[in-house]
Amino acid sequence: MSAVPSEDEVLSYFDTLSNWGRWGPDDELGTLNLVTPEKRMAAAQLVRVGTTVSCAWDVGGSPAAEQPFGPPQRLMIATGQGLADAHRVQLPGRESDLGSGALEHLGLVYHGYTVTHVDALSHIFWDGRMYDDRPAELVTSPFGATQLAVTALRDGVQTRGVLLDVAALRGVDWLEPGDGVSPDDLEGAEERQALRVEEGDVVLLRTGYGRKVRDRGPDTVSTGGRAGWQAACLPWLRDRGVAMIACDTAQDVMPSGYEKVRQPIHSVGIVAMGLWLIDNCDLETLARTCDAMGRSEFLFTLAPLRWVGATGSPANPLATF
Amino acid sequence: MSAVPSEDEVLSYFDTLSNWGRWGPDDELGTLNLVTPEKRMAAAQLVRVGTTVSCAWDVGGSPAAEQPFGPPQRLMIATGQGLADAHRVQLPGRESDLGSGALEHLGLVYHGYTVTHVDALSHIFWDGRMYDDRPAELVTSPFGATQLAVTALRDGVQTRGVLLDVAALRGVDWLEPGDGVSPDDLEGAEERQALRVEEGDVVLLRTGYGRKVRDRGPDTVSTGGRAGWQAACLPWLRDRGVAMIACDTAQDVMPSGYEKVRQPIHSVGIVAMGLWLIDNCDLETLARTCDAMGRSEFLFTLAPLRWVGATGSPANPLATF
Amino acid sequence: MSAVPSEDEVLSYFDTLSNWGRWGPDDELGTLNLVTPEKRMAAAQLVRVGTTVSCAWDVGGSPAAEQPFGPPQRLMIATGQGLADAHRVQLPGRESDLGSGALEHLGLVYHGYTVTHVDALSHIFWDGRMYDDRPAELVTSPFGATQLAVTALRDGVQTRGVLLDVAALRGVDWLEPGDGVSPDDLEGAEERQALRVEEGDVVLLRTGYGRKVRDRGPDTVSTGGRAGWQAACLPWLRDRGVAMIACDTAQDVMPSGYEKVRQPIHSVGIVAMGLWLIDNCDLETLARTCDAMGRSEFLFTLAPLRWVGATGSPANPLATF
Amino acid sequence: MSAVPSEDEVLSYFDTLSNWGRWGPDDELGTLNLVTPEKRMAAAQLVRVGTTVSCAWDVGGSPAAEQPFGPPQRLMIATGQGLADAHRVQLPGRESDLGSGALEHLGLVYHGYTVTHVDALSHIFWDGRMYDDRPAELVTSPFGATQLAVTALRDGVQTRGVLLDVAALRGVDWLEPGDGVSPDDLEGAEERQALRVEEGDVVLLRTGYGRKVRDRGPDTVSTGGRAGWQAACLPWLRDRGVAMIACDTAQDVMPSGYEKVRQPIHSVGIVAMGLWLIDNCDLETLARTCDAMGRSEFLFTLAPLRWVGATGSPANPLATF
Repeated sequence: MSAVPSEDEVLSYFDTLSNWGRWGPDDELGTLNLVTPEKRMAAAQLVRVGTTVSCAWDVGGSPAAEQPFGPPQRLMIATGQGLADAHRVQLPGRESDLGSGALEHLGLVYHGYTVTHVDALSHIFWDGRMYDDRPAELVTSPFGATQLAVTALRDGVQTRGVLLDVAALRGVDWLEPGDGVSPDDLEGAEERQALRVEEGDVVLLRTGYGRKVRDRGPDTVSTGGRAGWQAACLPWLRDRGVAMIACDTAQDVMPSGYEKVRQPIHSVGIVAMGLWLIDNCDLETLARTCDAMGRSEFLFTLAPLRWVGATGSPANPLATF
Repeated sequence: MSAVPSEDEVLSYFDTLSNWGRWGPDDELGTLNLVTPEKRMAAAQLVRVGTTVSCAWDVGGSPAAEQPFGPPQRLMIATGQGLADAHRVQLPGRESDLGSGALEHLGLVYHGYTVTHVDALSHIFWDGRMYDDRPAELVTSPFGATQLAVTALRDGVQTRGVLLDVAALRGVDWLEPGDGVSPDDLEGAEERQALRVEEGDVVLLRTGYGRKVRDRGPDTVSTGGRAGWQAACLPWLRDRGVAMIACDTAQDVMPSGYEKVRQPIHSVGIVAMGLWLIDNCDLETLARTCDAMGRSEFLFTLAPLRWVGATGSPANPLATF
Repeated sequence: MSAVPSEDEVLSYFDTLSNWGRWGPDDELGTLNLVTPEKRMAAAQLVRVGTTVSCAWDVGGSPAAEQPFGPPQRLMIATGQGLADAHRVQLPGRESDLGSGALEHLGLVYHGYTVTHVDALSHIFWDGRMYDDRPAELVTSPFGATQLAVTALRDGVQTRGVLLDVAALRGVDWLEPGDGVSPDDLEGAEERQALRVEEGDVVLLRTGYGRKVRDRGPDTVSTGGRAGWQAACLPWLRDRGVAMIACDTAQDVMPSGYEKVRQPIHSVGIVAMGLWLIDNCDLETLARTCDAMGRSEFLFTLAPLRWVGATGSPANPLATF
Repeated sequence: MSAVPSEDEVLSYFDTLSNWGRWGPDDELGTLNLVTPEKRMAAAQLVRVGTTVSCAWDVGGSPAAEQPFGPPQRLMIATGQGLADAHRVQLPGRESDLGSGALEHLGLVYHGYTVTHVDALSHIFWDGRMYDDRPAELVTSPFGATQLAVTALRDGVQTRGVLLDVAALRGVDWLEPGDGVSPDDLEGAEERQALRVEEGDVVLLRTGYGRKVRDRGPDTVSTGGRAGWQAACLPWLRDRGVAMIACDTAQDVMPSGYEKVRQPIHSVGIVAMGLWLIDNCDLETLARTCDAMGRSEFLFTLAPLRWVGATGSPANPLATF
């Protein structure tokens, strides 16, 4: 059985699991270099019934205990209100009673524990450096991430997706805060689901949080923690050549038990490995679909916004069967 | 040769092309009802080399003459600045010199002539009604679109995409403002590209604007107009069962020549037909890829943000070959 | 002793206390018409020691239990981070190591229970009407308040301010949620403080909430209510010719006990009387200053932002002794 | 006649005009230390007719050639639209047809050439330092200005204001871009207007830009420059003990003619002298009022928003006669 690594071991991961320099001097893709055209082609072959399922929560519709920067803003600039009135007040700028429309300003801080989003490789620093030894100083107030921004994913991500349902493996509705998922769990899920995670895959980890939040409301992460990957999964993920991970929590089990590397999946994964993360997925419909289909692999598609300088993007990841 | 329809004819389209009631009383999908599982499966078979190409501009990176609501905002909340300094000023709240990260607020008004985005069926009204006879009043300041919001696309769009390259058909670098694309153009492009638009397809119309904006800078639409679809294409699009249209301009040729229905593609298309629109695409890489591949059909994927109450979403549409 | 009026009585105030038409057909000033040049001159004579005291909370610094639209946003566009580093990373756009600066985006929803702000006469409707019988429909999504906006106060407000310290009158540290201030309280405070409220005055009502929030944290208004003016004060305020009221809560005692007119001070005061309100003041320093000075009258100055179409403004009201 | 100083002279101002340390180790007020209670009392005596005049433009209403961060945002969350309709669509959350109201989100970047605003002492850096030798690094993305923020002005500014009308002195409607105001101009205006600038005064400099922008539209500052103070005024301002300056442009004549210190009023004024600046005033009504009153001195009041961490504030400065 896999033991929980000591903090010194986790700190050593910054060296032993490092992908710095692995894909050339100007790399912006990190582990997504492992997705080859062949991998994409093979993934497309998994589309055998033509069903597409979202792995995201509604923006502004997910239950949220903590939103330190406030809720997503959908601020209307024009609406249809007043158009039902036969004797309307004449307003400046409303040229015609016939053609008109609605539009809005959208604004949000997507990083956190609520919105489904992808983390770009510029989101996390360790000791003043980003992935591939880039200075953290390259992320600035006026220009955002001048390297390793989310625009590295301009052409999206398409590859094989694999759901690992650890809640189902353990026979629980959901994992509780502090429950860490170990490599044994991952391999147990593989065995139970009769598949094997391979190079270039996106692995979606289900802890059952989607069910929990619907039944019990959201976790208060800052005080109570959350379920998620243990640090011990990091060597496993690198060994298997996983291209991207997604989770129904914000990845790291919290509390992690470490003082310095409080969120090893974020710190080691993003900075050392160049591993891409999709946080706060809703995997309940996906899990039900996998059960109904009798398979846990599918074509996975991520199409992030190509926002210049952004350290990630809100997203709607899709699984196609 | 197809004649430009009179305004009375265009007004009659609200009846003759109407899809109101066609897909049941609570329909939210409009023409996307035409995308069947079989269609999706067949589209996935078009992935034969594993190449994915974006049809979007960078957000905040596209040339823009007119942005009445200002440019997209990427406002940093935390950056890496100051982390390179060996003798740093001690700041409140910076617990550790080791682990830290960057995050930001993103905000924008995506409707307009700049950002690649999808219009939801709640974006346009005609005579106080939305698609399927819903009152425009259902789009309100506090709640946004309480029906026909972009969340109707929660599971994304996947189907066959077809590029119709009318600039190439005409042998020009780009169509000029006011140049309308006619059904003859569409069929000419079909013939030249040796394919036929079929039910459930997404049709991407290239006017060459992506090339023009790179060579000459952006059109000032409000004074000079733009290239785009003529109203005469509407019956053609309905006849062929097109599920969604995308364009490198904002769809409607401008000026359209009509007094009341100034933007027939938006007004008739969205309100009467329930037709989904993706505005302001960048189709240059797509066109080059189609040329290189010797085919103009591909798996098309749209994964809009599932923003509650929004009348559309910024998006990064993908074409996979 | 003054009785609490029935809801029918409060409803009758819409007629009996109405100022509609009182100041001509195009009035935008409501009760601020009662501030005359003579009043302003006399108020300036109250400046006898040259001490100015703010009546506002810091924006983003006040304790807040409820902020449904999120906290105020101060989003930096340029900062000084990185400038201490002798060996700086060269950044695009940073021309010089010498001259530079900081700037930011500020954003907020000021209405609510937290930010010190003035309500314009367009903030509240009754039965589809605003003050002076203007249609509520004149406040629109694209244009905001096309009449009765805060720009009516473009030249600010200067007049005599009077603090009525009802917490001190009652000998308590603060009034509790649900404690209503009656006309007897107002007259008791006048007597205790040896002054009389007169036409054109701004009356600042202290319930002690500033002390409570510092000692106990903020009230959760939506569940627990708040101290404030009883509806019975409305005839008193009109009778005395009060030009503006300010309070350390959001004016209305909550719950008010009324079903239809849940917030009589807002509804009757703003809509019928054209009374200007300043919500969520911090009156603790002011109260201490009044005690030290041995007087409760001063030159009052309000200089709201002249924001086109806004239904109010965050503000920093000043008292000068 | 005063000569334009060389760049070396201007650079020497950082030493010769410095107020660093002058008002103690924790000073946040800079030149506003020169406003004494006596000064405030005397200023209040200037209120002799009870007329108050704003020195600000409307926010969102001023003509603007350049707004790199977009126009001010007034984004409505609730409006009165739809309330005029007798047969209203029932909307979720609209409890009552009777009482309702309007509210909005306000957002802006006030620094620049458009919005009337005060610069806090944290707005400008020189060689990595702020006023009083504070490190520029104290202004951070997450916390804004942790020292020298606009909250230093929490109790506002009240003192004597003096309008110096250099456009009138020169007999022109307005000064043109590049026209610098010299100490001779200031003294000429003093003589013409029969007053003398004294310690603790706020000096408001009229170049006539308010008239120009109404007649000709806004200057395009980035290409054409603007009228404003010459660097030679800096010793004059320090010599006279001016507490704050306001201008109908953004202070510095542009182009200034200097390579390193492009905006000496901002750089030397704010960083070395701790001088407070109010940019982009509208002084036309004030000038007309001074003419009508036959005097150019008045009670000046500034009540900035007390926004935690902000490097300034949009403002509505008032002049009372």
